[in-house]
Amino acid sequence: MTTPPTSGLLEAALYADDLDAAERFYGDTLGLPVVLKMEGRHVFFRTGQTILLIFDPNAAETPGDSPLAAPPHGAHGPGHACLASDDLPAWEKHLTDYGIPVEHRITWPNGARSIYFRDPAGNSLEIAEPKLWDATP
Amino acid sequence: MTTPPTSGLLEAALYADDLDAAERFYGDTLGLPVVLKMEGRHVFFRTGQTILLIFDPNAAETPGDSPLAAPPHGAHGPGHACLASDDLPAWEKHLTDYGIPVEHRITWPNGARSIYFRDPAGNSLEIAEPKLWDATP
Repeated sequence: MTTPPTSGLLEAALYADDLDAAERFYGDTLGLPVVLKMEGRHVFFRTGQTILLIFDPNAAETPGDSPLAAPPHGAHGPGHACLASDDLPAWEKHLTDYGIPVEHRITWPNGARSIYFRDPAGNSLEIAEPKLWDATP
Repeated sequence: MTTPPTSGLLEAALYADDLDAAERFYGDTLGLPVVLKMEGRHVFFRTGQTILLIFDPNAAETPGDSPLAAPPHGAHGPGHACLASDDLPAWEKHLTDYGIPVEHRITWPNGARSIYFRDPAGNSLEIAEPKLWDATP
């Protein structure tokens, strides 16, 4: 059977109990524009061609009564996401200026570098040079 | 303070206890190319500019002893991700051909459509027309 094509990741999700803290972190500290927000349920951010969805897991597990309610989901425990940047030194300085510890640094075999830190909910975030995945199929 | 730019989401993560089932599902059924695999730990797929990481959560919670081991993470319970496609009828037929139930369908206020289904681990997957997010900042 021929598989229809897809053109990329339109949405990715992380979970956070404190959506106000998440909005300050992703919006103010990381500089991502808010595209949609529903108090107590979720706040969504644009990052390139993908929308990064931050949900309160307890709300996402409970389908709303709107006809636009999506099927239930909701994960607990630290998730992971990685943003692309070609200027890791600027990000290290920026995170330090905001008092956010850089938890770990990796230089990958192809020379790409990553830095790791945590969002207020404990999710493991990474900023990496996009060439990290250049050589892969 | 000026926030350094990021250029998009380089990686997103979902979790699955059965990585072989995840590889068959994302690789064969959804047609995403595998870019990296470590038996018992993870399998990674390319989707446009983003790498979709599928981790065994129990393995991701335990840092490996490699110098390339990333900080621990690992979420439990159903996560969410959405792939972009402009041909939802083809995807409905494709999923049906593979015996995968379409759990839900939404037509959004701007006319964009979404279909929802589950991966073998229970994660809530969506395929949506990318114009869903066109009108947002």
